[in-house]
Amino acid sequence: MNIRILLVLFLCCTVLLRSQSEDEKQLKAIYDMALTNGKAYDWLNYLSNQIGGRLSGSVQAQEAVEYTKRQMDVLGLDRVWLQPVMVPKWVRGTPEFAYIETKPGITTNVPICALGGSVATPDGGLKAKVVEVQSIEDLERLGREKIQGKLVFFNRPMDATIIRTFRAYSGCVFQRYGGAAAAAKYGALGVIVRSLSLKLDDYPHTGSMSYGDTPVEDRIPAAAISTNAAELLSTTLKLNPDIKFYFRQNCKQFPDVESYNVIGEIRGSEFPNEIMIVGGHLDSWDLGDGAHDDGAGVVQSMDVLRLIKASGYRPKRTIRAVLFMNEENGLRGANKYAEVAKAKKENHVFALESDAGGFTPRGFSLDCSDENFKQVEGWKTLFEPYLIHLFVRGGSGADVGPLKGENVVLAGLRPDSQRYFDHHHAATDTFQYVNKRELELGAATMASLVYLMDKYGIIQPKNIKG
Amino acid sequence: MNIRILLVLFLCCTVLLRSQSEDEKQLKAIYDMALTNGKAYDWLNYLSNQIGGRLSGSVQAQEAVEYTKRQMDVLGLDRVWLQPVMVPKWVRGTPEFAYIETKPGITTNVPICALGGSVATPDGGLKAKVVEVQSIEDLERLGREKIQGKLVFFNRPMDATIIRTFRAYSGCVFQRYGGAAAAAKYGALGVIVRSLSLKLDDYPHTGSMSYGDTPVEDRIPAAAISTNAAELLSTTLKLNPDIKFYFRQNCKQFPDVESYNVIGEIRGSEFPNEIMIVGGHLDSWDLGDGAHDDGAGVVQSMDVLRLIKASGYRPKRTIRAVLFMNEENGLRGANKYAEVAKAKKENHVFALESDAGGFTPRGFSLDCSDENFKQVEGWKTLFEPYLIHLFVRGGSGADVGPLKGENVVLAGLRPDSQRYFDHHHAATDTFQYVNKRELELGAATMASLVYLMDKYGIIQPKNIKG
Repeated sequence: MNIRILLVLFLCCTVLLRSQSEDEKQLKAIYDMALTNGKAYDWLNYLSNQIGGRLSGSVQAQEAVEYTKRQMDVLGLDRVWLQPVMVPKWVRGTPEFAYIETKPGITTNVPICALGGSVATPDGGLKAKVVEVQSIEDLERLGREKIQGKLVFFNRPMDATIIRTFRAYSGCVFQRYGGAAAAAKYGALGVIVRSLSLKLDDYPHTGSMSYGDTPVEDRIPAAAISTNAAELLSTTLKLNPDIKFYFRQNCKQFPDVESYNVIGEIRGSEFPNEIMIVGGHLDSWDLGDGAHDDGAGVVQSMDVLRLIKASGYRPKRTIRAVLFMNEENGLRGANKYAEVAKAKKENHVFALESDAGGFTPRGFSLDCSDENFKQVEGWKTLFEPYLIHLFVRGGSGADVGPLKGENVVLAGLRPDSQRYFDHHHAATDTFQYVNKRELELGAATMASLVYLMDKYGIIQPKNIKG
Repeated sequence: MNIRILLVLFLCCTVLLRSQSEDEKQLKAIYDMALTNGKAYDWLNYLSNQIGGRLSGSVQAQEAVEYTKRQMDVLGLDRVWLQPVMVPKWVRGTPEFAYIETKPGITTNVPICALGGSVATPDGGLKAKVVEVQSIEDLERLGREKIQGKLVFFNRPMDATIIRTFRAYSGCVFQRYGGAAAAAKYGALGVIVRSLSLKLDDYPHTGSMSYGDTPVEDRIPAAAISTNAAELLSTTLKLNPDIKFYFRQNCKQFPDVESYNVIGEIRGSEFPNEIMIVGGHLDSWDLGDGAHDDGAGVVQSMDVLRLIKASGYRPKRTIRAVLFMNEENGLRGANKYAEVAKAKKENHVFALESDAGGFTPRGFSLDCSDENFKQVEGWKTLFEPYLIHLFVRGGSGADVGPLKGENVVLAGLRPDSQRYFDHHHAATDTFQYVNKRELELGAATMASLVYLMDKYGIIQPKNIKG
C-alpha cells in the first residue's frame, strides 16, 4: 500500500478517535455535573411544593411563569423572555361527588373527577341508569334506543401486556377525549370514563376532553372514575343492569386569559440562526402538583442550558429552553411558539421534548428523516455507559409537534414508562414520586444529545439533495 | 449450486426461523401472563404487610418460611421442602438514641441504628469526641494518638457519578462491614458510619458488620447514621472539632437457632439430574419490611416456577426456586444449600439470583465462561421487545455464589438501580415503594432466561474440551 494512503488513513483514525474521546469526556462532564450539582430537583421542589398544580389560566400557572423566568434570569443566558399567548381557563370548582345506587337509598360513594373542559352537571347532580361500553362501535351497536337518557360508562382498560405503556394509553384515550361527544349523539345524559391508569387504586385521573362539533346545548358532562371504582361499577352492573349512578360537578369554562411561554436562550457562536430547542410544558393538571407531568420536563430543559454553559462548551447554534404553556388543554403555547417562529422565519433545526415523566431515561424517540435517524443512532455507543439504549422512530411530543417540517429533527426523551400512568393527571402526580437521580439522568441525557447535535450539525435533507 | 445443498440450507433456515418464532411466542406468553395474572405482587404484599421485616432467627423469618412453603405447596410442583440450617440470631433491642453535643447541655438528636452484629453500648450509652475519616488509610495516618478514646466517624459518601449504583456501594461498604474492627485496633470507643445511600434523608441504613478476629473484649459498638445527620455531624466537627457525640444501643447476639431454606422443584423431563435454580433471600433487615431486599427476589423466584408451569412448557431439566435464609448476616442458607448439593453430588448447571430490588429489569450480569456468556448474549434480540438490553459480565449474587464451579452459569437479574439504595436496609424498604409492573417484568425476565437455558441447554466447557 502506498505510504501516503497509509498516512492519511492513520490521520483519519487519529482525528476520529480523538473526537470520540472528546465526546466521551464531554458527556461524562455533563452527567457528572447533573448528578452532583444538578439544579433540576431543587427547581422541581419549588414548582411542586411551593406553587403546586398549574392549570392554564390559574394563579399557580402565572406563578410558575414568573418563577421559571426568574430562575433562568440568573443563569447568565443571552436572553430570557416571555412570549404572550391567550389560553383557555377551565376551573374545576368544588370537589366532585358520585355514588352507585344499587337500590333506592342504598348507595356507595365512588371517587370521580370532572374531565378537563367538561360542562357541569345540573346543580343538583345527575342520576340515571348506566350502560357500559368499551368502544365507539359499542355505542353504534347499542344505538339510541339503549343509550338515550342514560349515562355511558366507558370502561376499556389499558392493555397491561404492552411493555411501552404510552402505547396502551393511545389505545384507550379516545374514551376520555371523544367519549362525551360520541355518546351525546345517541342521547346520553353524561359519560363516566375509566381512569387511564394501569394501577388499580382509588384515584381518578383527569385529562382533556373535547366536544368537537357538538352544539353547546347538547354537551353532556364527563367525569373520570378511579380504576377500583370502575371495576366495582362494572361488577355491580353485571349483577343488576338497572342500578343507577349519581354524579355532581360544577366545573366551568371562563373566557380565555393571557399567559406566557417562558423562553431562555444561549446564542450560537457560529450559526446563530440555526435554532435548537429543548422543552417541556409549564402548565399541569390541578389534582396533583404536576411533578412528573410536566414539571420534570420543565426543570430538565432549564438544566440543559445550565449544564451546557457550566460544561464550558460554547454552542455553535442557538439553543433555547422553551417552557410551553397550555399543553394539557389546548396546546396554545406550542402553536403560538411555532406561529411566531414561522412569522420570523426562524430556522429550527432540532427540537427535543421531555414530557413522559422524570423517570430513568432509556433513550429517544425520533421523528425525522432516515439520514437524521441514522446520525443519532450513530451516537449510541457514546450513550451506552449511561444505560441509554433506546433509539426508536416515533412521536416526539405534543409541544414540539407544531414545528414539524422538512428540515427539523423532532425528538422526545423516553424515560422508563412503567410507573408513569400511576401518576399521570391524578392527585398522585406529586414531587415525592420523583427520584432525584432519575430526574438528573434525564437532564444529562438531553444535554448530551443537544451537545452532539450542535457539535456535528444536523444533516439537512435539502443539503443531501443539493 | 447443488439443489441438495440449497434444500438443506432452506430446511436449516426454516428450523431456525421456526425456533426463533417459537421462542418469541413463548417469551410473549410468559410476559403476558406475568403482567396480567402475576402472583408475585400479592405474595409480596403478604410477606411485607402481614409478616414484615424477617431478620434471621426472628418469629417473622419463621412465618415467612411457613408462608412461602404453603404458597409453593399449592402450585402443583413436584416437590416442596424445607432445608434446615442454623442461623445467627441478633436482636436490635429497644430503639437506639443519639445526639450531637456542641456544648454541655446543648444537644441535637440524630437518627441512628445499630449495625447488624454490633455489640451494645454500655447501659448508659457512650459519649466521646469524634474523629472523622473516609478510609482505613485515614485511620493509619491519624494513629492511636488521635483515635484512642474517641468515636470514629466513617463519612465516605457513595459516589453519585457512578451510574450503576451497586458499584458506588462497593466503594463504601468497607466502612460498615470492617470499620469497627479497624477502628478498635487504634483504641476507638465506637464507630458511627454514614448510611450507604445516595439520598440525603433522615433514615439510617443498617447492614451487616464483622469484628473479624477482634477479641471479644475489644469489640466496640457500631451504628449507622442517616445521611442528613452525617452531613450535620461533619459540618459541626469542622466548626468545632471538640464537640461530643452520644449514642446508646442495646442490641444483642443470641445463640444460633434453627431455620430453613425453602425449596420448590419442577423435575426435569429429560435431564432431571441437571439442576437449574432461581432464587432470592427470605430473610431481610428489621427496619423496613424487606419488600425490595429481598422480598422481591423471593416472590419473583416463586413466580418463575408458576409461569413456566402455566405457560405449558415442560422443562427438560430440573428447575428449583430456592428461598435462601440468612443472606443478610451470615449467608448460612446459601452455604448450607451448596454444601448439601455437593454432598449429594447434585449437578447444578445454572443459578439465577434476584437480589437487587423489584425495579424495572434491565438485563443480567453473568459469571461464567466466555462460551456461556456468548450463548446468553445470543438471545439478546429475543429480549429486546421487553427493553432488556444489559448483558454484562460480573457478580451474580451472594446466595448463588457458593455454587460457583467450572460447569455452572451464575447469573444475577439486573434491575434499574437508581432508587435501590434509597431503600436498602432502611425503614423505607417497604411494599409501597415496589411497583407491580416493574416487579412482574422482573419475574417474566427471569422465567424467560430459565426457559431459554433449559430449552437450549448450557454449553459445558468440559464438553467443549472433550
